[in-house]
Order: sequence, then C-alpha cells, then structure tokens
Amino acid sequence: RIRKITLKDMHLPMAVTAAEMTSVRERLEAAGIELSSCGVVYMKTEEEVHKAFAYAKLAGITMMVGVPDAPLLPLAERKVKETSISLAIHNHGPTDQRFPSPESAYSLIEKMDRRMGLCLDVGHTQRLGLDPAAQVEKYFDRLLDVHIKDVSATDAKGTTVEIGSGVIDTVKLLRTLAKLKYAGTLHFEHEKDEKDPFPGVAESVGYVRGIMAAM
Amino acid sequence: RIRKITLKDMHLPMAVTAAEMTSVRERLEAAGIELSSCGVVYMKTEEEVHKAFAYAKLAGITMMVGVPDAPLLPLAERKVKETSISLAIHNHGPTDQRFPSPESAYSLIEKMDRRMGLCLDVGHTQRLGLDPAAQVEKYFDRLLDVHIKDVSATDAKGTTVEIGSGVIDTVKLLRTLAKLKYAGTLHFEHEKDEKDPFPGVAESVGYVRGIMAAM
Repeated sequence: RIRKITLKDMHLPMAVTAAEMTSVRERLEAAGIELSSCGVVYMKTEEEVHKAFAYAKLAGITMMVGVPDAPLLPLAERKVKETSISLAIHNHGPTDQRFPSPESAYSLIEKMDRRMGLCLDVGHTQRLGLDPAAQVEKYFDRLLDVHIKDVSATDAKGTTVEIGSGVIDTVKLLRTLAKLKYAGTLHFEHEKDEKDPFPGVAESVGYVRGIMAAM
Repeated sequence: RIRKITLKDMHLPMAVTAAEMTSVRERLEAAGIELSSCGVVYMKTEEEVHKAFAYAKLAGITMMVGVPDAPLLPLAERKVKETSISLAIHNHGPTDQRFPSPESAYSLIEKMDRRMGLCLDVGHTQRLGLDPAAQVEKYFDRLLDVHIKDVSATDAKGTTVEIGSGVIDTVKLLRTLAKLKYAGTLHFEHEKDEKDPFPGVAESVGYVRGIMAAM
C-alpha cells in the first residue's frame, strides 16, 4: 500500500547515471510506487545547486527537499523557475546552523517564487520546543512537504520513536492539516532501528491511518 | 509496550509442567508482560475440560478462551465456579460447526454463571456477515474478551489482514466498546505472515492506538 516514496542519497546516489535512474524508476513503477521527492539534498556551492536540480530532473520529480546555504537561495530560485521543480527547505532543529526552525527558512523565501517552500520536519520542530501543528498553521502558504515522525523529548535530546509513542500531538497535527485542506505529501521518516526499520515504520503508518479513519 | 499477552498451545503446550510454567511466567514478568489469557483451548471430552482448567490454573490466569463441545458446558460451568477462572467461548465463523456466531454460544450460556461468557472474534463475526460492533452491543453483558483483527472479505473467503486494510469498521467497533465502557481485553490476532508477523502486528497496533488517540 505504499504509493509514494522519497529517497535520500544513501539510497539514490547523487552521482546516479541516467541508465541507473531509469532502472530505479522502472522498479518503482512495477511496484506501483511514485518517486514523489528526494532529499534532504545539501547545497553548499553553486555547483552543488546545479547538480541537485539536475539530479532531481533526472529523477523526474517535481519537488526536492533541500538545504541550500542561505547565499545560494537566489540561485536556487532561478533553478526552480528554470526547471519547475519546487524546493522544500527542510528544518533540522536545535543543532542546525542553517535552518533550525520553519521560520528561519520562511523569512528568507517568503518574497521569492511560490515554489520556494518548506518541508516541515515535525520531529525537529518539536525538538526546538515549537508545536508542529501551530507551525503548520503559521507557514501553511509555503508548506510543500511534511516529514512526519515522533520524538522522545521536546529538546535537543529527543530522538525518533514510533508515531504515537513520543511527545508530538499527532492528532492535533493531522486535524490542523485536514482543517487547512493540505494537499501535499506526508513522508514518514524513521531514524531508528536502522537494521530493521520495518516494524517501527508499520506501527507509525498504522497510527496515522487510524487517526485519519477516526477523524 | 506490550503489557498483556494470550498464548495458544503452540506457544504454551497443554502438557506444560509446573516447572516450565514457572519459567515462562518469570520470563514474561521480567519483560513486564502479564499472561492475560490462554487459548483457544478445545474441549471435546470431560477429561479435556478438567485438563484445560488445570492448565489455566497452572498458568495463573483468570480467563480462558475456549471451545467446549455444547454437552460439556454444564461441566465447564462447574469448573468455572470451582476455580474462579472465567471461560470466554470463541466463535469461529462460517465453517465452525460448534460456535459460528456469538449468538450460538450466548444462547447456551446466558442462564449460566456470569463468568461463562464470550470471546468475540471480530474477524470470524464479520466473515459471517455480522457487524462486530452490533454484536458487541447485543451480547455485551457476557463479553469477556475480543480477538481484534481485520479480514479481507465479508464471507467465508475472508482472511486476516492488517487492521485498517480490510472490511471491518474498526472505528465503529472501538467507539462502541468505549461507549459501553468495556473494561475487558482486546487481544490482537494476526493469522498472516507466519514467518514474520511483526510488521503486520505493529501496523495493526498502531492503527488501533491511532483511533483511540483521536477518539
């Protein structure tokens, strides 16, 4: 029942060739899965911005989750206009020097092309002491993607846990998204049980589907 | 986070010795898990009724899920009174000669000791074309246990699937149980993916917890 997937470079290397990408896309299509996004892609130089958009174009996706260094945002915006690939800037919480919070990215892009937006990571947002639902509401006009998960604590020490087992109010988050008629993606991210993530992901998916069934 | 478990004879053999049972209980206690029930235990002879209750007593449980042949119900009731172990009779759906529906058991025990009750299997109930929520409501006064799952179809061909993926209205079921202030157990049963049931069980548990969080 997985219909969309987002891949990181550990699964889909930045140096992927056109032939390899075709093979990946064919395997996903055979499984009925759409490659809906990629990332988080870091961009620290102009060259890396060009490479990132070339990679996203090769992958055939329409939205990339990325973290360009702030001075590269105007170039990123040009690439967005040129390729029609949206860029969702990802916040990484308390230890992130670039974009800890949704606001830190929003303030730099709010006057740019509307396809410059946010990927709100609910875990890192909660770890900053911010309520993910309130942040969704505040920055909704630029919300392109959500990385959904749960975390064990509302501070820098919080780590990913199965959704429903941590401190995030996922019912409130989903109610807010539904109220605002969010039509974008929710991508599950499970930074736990690296060797056998499947049960944890399955529990998280079940939890979200249960809430949605009851809403 | 598993707090209660029910074991079948494939996991806890009927011929278990007192020493083996002590070891099982110690391991469960160390993991913080209560052995809340056992079964389904079939009883086709008087001897099997005596053995079943001796087994349940050795296991230290207060409720057994069982299927005694109908003529053995008076003996089973005597054993219930003697041991104070409740007996929850389990319905097995369209192909079950003894107790296909909750009603088929209820009609035979409704005048017996109140500790003679039902374990409502929502999957087999749905497979009979009956709404599990409506059946819960109808036979609530004798509802001791629920085997919760989902099934792929509302007929004999239905098989177990992850909760939320099948035809059962689990939101309605849980709302009904909450409305009636059900204080008994819900035991997850996952007759699927025998070699690796964990992701499927995890998704089902997540789904139920999600509904309960949203209620």
